[in-house]
Parts: sequence; structure tokens; C-alpha cells
Amino acid sequence: MEIGRVVGTVVSTIKLDGLTSYKLLIVTPLSATKELTAAEGRDDYVAIDLAGSGEGEIVLVTRGSAARVSGATDVPTDAAIIAIVDTIQIGTRNAYSKP
Amino acid sequence: MEIGRVVGTVVSTIKLDGLTSYKLLIVTPLSATKELTAAEGRDDYVAIDLAGSGEGEIVLVTRGSAARVSGATDVPTDAAIIAIVDTIQIGTRNAYSKP
Amino acid sequence: MEIGRVVGTVVSTIKLDGLTSYKLLIVTPLSATKELTAAEGRDDYVAIDLAGSGEGEIVLVTRGSAARVSGATDVPTDAAIIAIVDTIQIGTRNAYSKP
Amino acid sequence: MEIGRVVGTVVSTIKLDGLTSYKLLIVTPLSATKELTAAEGRDDYVAIDLAGSGEGEIVLVTRGSAARVSGATDVPTDAAIIAIVDTIQIGTRNAYSKP
Amino acid sequence: MEIGRVVGTVVSTIKLDGLTSYKLLIVTPLSATKELTAAEGRDDYVAIDLAGSGEGEIVLVTRGSAARVSGATDVPTDAAIIAIVDTIQIGTRNAYSKP
Repeated sequence: MEIGRVVGTVVSTIKLDGLTSYKLLIVTPLSATKELTAAEGRDDYVAIDLAGSGEGEIVLVTRGSAARVSGATDVPTDAAIIAIVDTIQIGTRNAYSKP
Repeated sequence: MEIGRVVGTVVSTIKLDGLTSYKLLIVTPLSATKELTAAEGRDDYVAIDLAGSGEGEIVLVTRGSAARVSGATDVPTDAAIIAIVDTIQIGTRNAYSKP
Repeated sequence: MEIGRVVGTVVSTIKLDGLTSYKLLIVTPLSATKELTAAEGRDDYVAIDLAGSGEGEIVLVTRGSAARVSGATDVPTDAAIIAIVDTIQIGTRNAYSKP
Repeated sequence: MEIGRVVGTVVSTIKLDGLTSYKLLIVTPLSATKELTAAEGRDDYVAIDLAGSGEGEIVLVTRGSAARVSGATDVPTDAAIIAIVDTIQIGTRNAYSKP
Repeated sequence: MEIGRVVGTVVSTIKLDGLTSYKLLIVTPLSATKELTAAEGRDDYVAIDLAGSGEGEIVLVTRGSAARVSGATDVPTDAAIIAIVDTIQIGTRNAYSKP
């Protein structure tokens, strides 16, 4: 899984039925060990939202077939937001706390 | 999933039966947060079209086994266009609107 | 899927039974939009041949579990050549035609 | 699979049920052949812990659907710590020994 | 699949049961077309050995779910050595012959 920030939304009317009823959010992958800066060599992508997350929030995203394990088995997605992050601890340092 | 632009077509007569009846489109992956410029470190690839998309359109592509979830279970593909993008919103900014 | 050129062959006598009876071809991934030059950040790999392709040919390769969808379900491969490319069209430009 | 170091923890209260009862650990991927320095072009990620590992330990992580093979079939994860590394031997050189 | 060289071994006593009875080998990915130098942008990783390979040998490795196709269905691995390479032919040039 990877840490990311929800930065935007995609709206689509022409789409596969399986996507209906899911929010399509744009996620920027972050490096947890580098002060939540953009992760090296990874660009933004689109995930369905299974955690009720919102713009600006730090979330946990699962990629690949894992995105369809929990209740979304028939959704043609390869990425899903599965948790909203409360805190990130790197060693003894608090790297992030949800405001 | 990722945002991409349909930029071309592949035609093939010698191919696995499972590919028959699908359009094979060339997609350039885009960075939604960087003005829809080419995504960092990703090159173009080929996807089957499940959304009736056309050349130049901004689309949503799913990769890996997700490409075979909706009606294309017997197609040997690892990428499918599953939606045509209407709008992309990054924060309060409208990053894209379908012409 | 991705466009590639068949550039070589791997021969192996000690291998899993599932690989027997398949040609093991070396493929260089190509960028369709950049005059079929080597794709950025991807190196060559080995694919089984399901399309009867030969050295020098431009082919379509599927990666991951998709490589085992069509008739090769018991083959421990993560890449398969599934089509021989006739033409590639980028916009109004003919980027490739099979000689 | 890849070698990594456990460097931190993610805490989340709003998450999919499948994640409950698993520790979410942040892993930095390492290059075994380069003195366990950070692996080239890979950034940190989050894995569930199936091996009882702790901060600072060198572990073995499996990615993708493999993360759900052993007892974690219903967990929406794409990464799992599956072993704690005792020693790494590169040729005749001992590259790592658990303290 | 990819060409790699077996360069080392990982030993672990605390691990998932599924890993027991498999050798855990460290593999450096190689570029077949570039004189078997290290493959661009890929770092070393760990694979189970299904081919009886040894240190220094050039092998064929399969990644992802393919690693669990042949006899290793319950092993939580995402990489498996499935063949020992005898020869690699690039065009008319013999790029490698097993000593």
C-alpha cells in the first residue's frame, strides 16, 4: 500500500457500469520518510474511494487486485483508498498527525 | 487507474482470438496535477477500448487484472479504457473540461 | 499491453515443465509515439510466443496474469506475445507498417 | 520479494474492516547488493505485518496478490512482511547478520 | 519474465510456513541486449528457487502471480526462478553460453 494525498476529482458520464456509485479521486503518492513530499518516480493516479475520504486528506491506497478485495469485487479498478491516515510515526518522530 | 490521451491505433491480423472485436488504442499516460503533460517515467502503451473512445480524447485506463473485470474476462489484455473523462478538478481549479 | 521488437531467443534445458513447447523470446519495449525507439525506463524481458512471431518483428505483448488468459493458463509466465503488429497509426501519421 | 527495513508505523481509525488487527508498517526497500542502501528508484510503502517484526528490523516483503496468500486472503493489501531476515550472503561475503 | 544472475542467499528462521523448504535467492536483473549488464532502473530482489539453480548462474525469473503457477500455489512469493539459461542469442550474436 502507499501513502497519498487526495488532490482532486475525476467526473465521467460515459463509463463502465461497475464504476457507478464510486467517487473517482486523484491521488498524489507521497514519501512517508521524506516529509510527505512527492514519492520518487511515481506520478498521480486515480483511485476509487472506499473510506469516505475528502480533498486534501492523507490516505492509504492499495494497488492492483487488492483494490477489489473488499466489497468492490466487480469494480474494474486497480487502485482503492482503503483508509484515512491519523498518524505516521517514523522512528521516534511524529511525521504526520491528522489536523 | 490513470488518466491518458488516446493518440493512435494498432492494427493486427495475426493475433489471439480473444482480441478480435476490440479496438487496440495507443494511450499516452498523463499527469493530472501537471497540466496533463506526459506522466513522469511512464511511456505509451496499448489498451483495449471498452468505452467507445476516440482519438484525442482524455480517458481513464485501468491496468492489470482489473482490465478483465467487466465483460472482458477472456481477453488477454492488461489495460482497458473504461471511461471517457468529462472534467478533472484539482483543488478549486478546473484542470480539464471535455470540449 | 505494449509494443515491442523481438530481438533474440533464450534456450534452457533445465526449466519447469510448464515452459516446455513454448519459444522464449527476448523483447525490447518500444515507444510507439517516439518513432519506435526504446521505451523510457523499461529494459528488455522474456516472453513466451503465442503468435508465431519471429526475430525482428514488431509485436504486441501482454504482461502479468493476462499472459496466461488464452490457452496458457498453466504456464508460469508473466509475459506473452499475443499479436504481430501490421500497422501503427499515430494521429494522421503512419508510424509503422509491416514490411 | 524484496528486502526492506521497517522504519515506521501508520495508525488509522477510519479504514476497511479487513485491515483491523494488522499492524501497518512503513518499509524502506533496500538493495541487498549495495550494502543495504535504499533501492534504486523505489520509495517507501506500507505493508501489513505477518511476521511479528519490529522497528529497525530487516525483513522480507512480498508484493501484489502474493501478500494475500497466507492467512490474509480477505485483507485488501498489496504488501506483506512475511519473514524476518537472519543473514544475507552475497557471494562469499556476509552482507548482513541480525544483531 | 526476466534474465537475472543469482548473487546471494537470504536465511530466515521467523517466516511464514509457506516459505519453508524453498531456497531464498537474491537475483540481480540483467539486460540481455546490453551484454548482461545490470538492467536499467531495476534493483535486486529475492526469489524462491524452483529450478535448482546456484550462485552465479544466469536464470529466468517470473514475477507476480506467475511465480505461484507451478507447484508453488500456496507460497506467498511474487518471484520464482523457473529455468536455468543455457544460451541467449541476440540476432546472429551469441550473447551468452552457460560455461
